[in-house]
Amino acid sequence: MNIGIVGLGLIGGCLGLDLRAQGHKVLGVSRRESTCNRAIALGVVDTASVDLAIFKATELVFICTPIATIGSTVEQLIPHLDPATVLTDVGSVKAPVVEAIAPLWANFVGGHPMAGKAESGLEVAQLNLFAHKPYVLTPIATTPPAAVEIVEKIARSLQSNIYYCSPHEHDRAVSWISHLPVMVSSSLIAACMSETNSEVLKLAQQIASSGFRDTSRVGGGNPELGVMMARYNRQELLRSLQQYRQQIEEITNLIEQENWPRLEQHFQSTHSARAKFVPD
Amino acid sequence: MNIGIVGLGLIGGCLGLDLRAQGHKVLGVSRRESTCNRAIALGVVDTASVDLAIFKATELVFICTPIATIGSTVEQLIPHLDPATVLTDVGSVKAPVVEAIAPLWANFVGGHPMAGKAESGLEVAQLNLFAHKPYVLTPIATTPPAAVEIVEKIARSLQSNIYYCSPHEHDRAVSWISHLPVMVSSSLIAACMSETNSEVLKLAQQIASSGFRDTSRVGGGNPELGVMMARYNRQELLRSLQQYRQQIEEITNLIEQENWPRLEQHFQSTHSARAKFVPD
Repeated sequence: MNIGIVGLGLIGGCLGLDLRAQGHKVLGVSRRESTCNRAIALGVVDTASVDLAIFKATELVFICTPIATIGSTVEQLIPHLDPATVLTDVGSVKAPVVEAIAPLWANFVGGHPMAGKAESGLEVAQLNLFAHKPYVLTPIATTPPAAVEIVEKIARSLQSNIYYCSPHEHDRAVSWISHLPVMVSSSLIAACMSETNSEVLKLAQQIASSGFRDTSRVGGGNPELGVMMARYNRQELLRSLQQYRQQIEEITNLIEQENWPRLEQHFQSTHSARAKFVPD
Repeated sequence: MNIGIVGLGLIGGCLGLDLRAQGHKVLGVSRRESTCNRAIALGVVDTASVDLAIFKATELVFICTPIATIGSTVEQLIPHLDPATVLTDVGSVKAPVVEAIAPLWANFVGGHPMAGKAESGLEVAQLNLFAHKPYVLTPIATTPPAAVEIVEKIARSLQSNIYYCSPHEHDRAVSWISHLPVMVSSSLIAACMSETNSEVLKLAQQIASSGFRDTSRVGGGNPELGVMMARYNRQELLRSLQQYRQQIEEITNLIEQENWPRLEQHFQSTHSARAKFVPD
């Protein structure tokens, strides 16, 4: 198959490596000539260009640009595509993307391969990043089944675990398990930094260990990514934050009231509930 | 040196292994005969008994019982001790312990070796658990320097990183980096479980990955430990929770107001601040 990739960062790069390894011909587009050359040198694409016209003969194109530019990318892409070409994206929020792109291109299938690395960029692209990781597809009523089939087949070939849901269900689910944790975790760091006794703050920094390390990890991550989540999944995230604030209020009340039996019940229920999200 | 250990769980067991490896004679006391036998079999102690009278000839005794029983343990221990014997504990909250024990025993030095394992109990005791980990000592104005010196020397021999502070400063610091994270993290799990759309909840459980795994880890831990933190470090924890709620409110307001520049500043500051707690 001839497969196009717009946006040659970590996700685009990893897709290119996997797809080429399977024998597909991969064509890449980046805004920068230097990225195109680097992608060819790294073996991520067969050919690359700054010109979207190279996608003329592709059967499938992955849009791997940041969410903010998916809409404008598709608009620029359309004049160069055969109407049968299937478009899919890899954005981590789906409702705004699907709402914007579905009216522009019939053969569009929203997608979200849920894999990543601590570092970003083309240089750290690797084979098999998506293997055994979730890959969520969010077709809507008007999406042609044949287009969905093509994207699913490719996602399956990456050894991803495929899930189907509506764009809205996707955004609500990632709000809980991906976007809310970033807000919770960054607020933890900010609260610790509010300590006004400099001796205590220094000691806290010296003795912080694995508990703090893990709980603060996603809150100390890429600032742009944090803003992107809030910006594009705003409604769902606000709803999750609202529920979260209630939980924090409840646990505070239990501690204020010294209601230890109910507090123990709370910890028992979160102990069992966690295993349903992350079985060890 | 003849060293006693009351309470043969994970911490007591690890101390015993390290101290015996250095050539000290280690005497253990547990409430249960079976634990005494197991401690001898595992090589954690040279000798063990259910009777505190075996500590008669010890120069140093570690109290490794749960915080709730440190006071009663010391009261029972006192009739059996030589007045020169130095007592120290390993409790994770210091002000209530030091306030209770210092009036009972002059040669008492509060301590907190900050190491642990996912599993608890004597069976998973190992050598070198405390190496390169913080060991906080909290002597007060009335603590004899010679007693502090003995505990510091032993802590140093475990290759721990030694820190000194007041019991109050210790409790405030661990409230930030150890106890608040548990409340933050368990509230995250509880909030996710509040999702009323069962399809979304199921999807969230299926697609949760490393971000949720790390942020929820300490909130899904041992329920009794969570209650212990809240119970014995209640004032400091309530103060930390109060600050934390303000941070969550602030981040919620920024998202409601779509103030993306200020939100990015927030994430930039938590990104840099985290490195001061957990340098990678």
